Amino acid sequence: MAKQEIILLDVWASMYSMKVKIALAEKGIPYECKCEDLNNKSQFLLDMNPVYKKVPVLIHNGKPICESSIIVEYIDEVWNDKAPLFPSDPCGKAHARFWADFINKKLYQIGRKLYTTKGEEHEAARIEFMDCLKLLEGELGDKPYFAGESFGYLDLSLIPFYSWFQVYETYGNYNFDYECAKLIAWAKRCIQNKVSVASTLPDLPKVFAYVQQEYYIG
Amino acid sequence: MAKQEIILLDVWASMYSMKVKIALAEKGIPYECKCEDLNNKSQFLLDMNPVYKKVPVLIHNGKPICESSIIVEYIDEVWNDKAPLFPSDPCGKAHARFWADFINKKLYQIGRKLYTTKGEEHEAARIEFMDCLKLLEGELGDKPYFAGESFGYLDLSLIPFYSWFQVYETYGNYNFDYECAKLIAWAKRCIQNKVSVASTLPDLPKVFAYVQQEYYIG
Repeated sequence: MAKQEIILLDVWASMYSMKVKIALAEKGIPYECKCEDLNNKSQFLLDMNPVYKKVPVLIHNGKPICESSIIVEYIDEVWNDKAPLFPSDPCGKAHARFWADFINKKLYQIGRKLYTTKGEEHEAARIEFMDCLKLLEGELGDKPYFAGESFGYLDLSLIPFYSWFQVYETYGNYNFDYECAKLIAWAKRCIQNKVSVASTLPDLPKVFAYVQQEYYIG
Repeated sequence: MAKQEIILLDVWASMYSMKVKIALAEKGIPYECKCEDLNNKSQFLLDMNPVYKKVPVLIHNGKPICESSIIVEYIDEVWNDKAPLFPSDPCGKAHARFWADFINKKLYQIGRKLYTTKGEEHEAARIEFMDCLKLLEGELGDKPYFAGESFGYLDLSLIPFYSWFQVYETYGNYNFDYECAKLIAWAKRCIQNKVSVASTLPDLPKVFAYVQQEYYIG
């Protein structure tokens, strides 16, 4: 393959950016990471993602790819000679996409309510968030990873949320070790066995301190 | 390929169901269509899509695939010998996915506000909906179809919304022939040139009558 120019526009605490970083690390692709300040977005970000103006954006030889799930599928298709992220059968692939889409649609939005709302809205989010984790835990079952024996697309889509678990646990008043022990064991397995994950995820207290500072709701 | 059992759980006015029907028609796949009553969902639907309890669901040899975009990708991967829905290069594929995702996220939700809200919320939706159509029109440019010369994934993702255009035009007080002439010409081209589209889309006045009856807001 000819010389590649690969740039990632990123924010350190973004689960969606982490997803892309793990995919790049799984494939062993070197890239330049440009950190964005979301309060003062660069002209480059606005040019590369004019529709949503959000990170992550992967720019491959000058061409921008936006939206984390789409970026990860792109990475898997372009660098298809190593560490396949999807099962090869279309049914398994559809299954992984379904749950990754569920995570995208539900987990971030509901999880956000845990530290930005109070009262009834907070209580509803608290219940719904745990329901989501329980569904995901059911999907994991007794397998080491979501697709079975090897780390893949769905693991990579969920594991970034683990770096926010101290936030969710504290603001949601959960005890994750007790309430979703299998999911916690899976997260620790990912960190222990996958350098791509361990090298990407920020420390939980760092994310917690960030959220405390940004979203203090008294 | 061995004998296939293919069932589609469907609602006639659902854009997302239409998307799947067009994909099946493009591939020439025979299937059994089971219409759901959303006010009285079948146990079969609840069993096949326990997470969202929504149509469309494609059941292929007993295995359910949910979420229209995921179903269409599945169809394209399983029946890959005919009428490819995606461009072959990963960048073109990512591009088509990006805009289809934009349609999923934006067009339905904003369009719905045109016939379910009033006052300021309605006016904001009116502006945002047209902005979305203009973005899509810009993306189409002067090409006959979104990916160029042939009908594909993005055309198939957007064209079902055309069957709701009388609804949007009336409740949003637009003149689409004037305000987005290129998009209307593209829609008519799809209907004229693609049997898969012409045979799937319900008549606009039928959809309009349905919305008038279901969502009368005075």
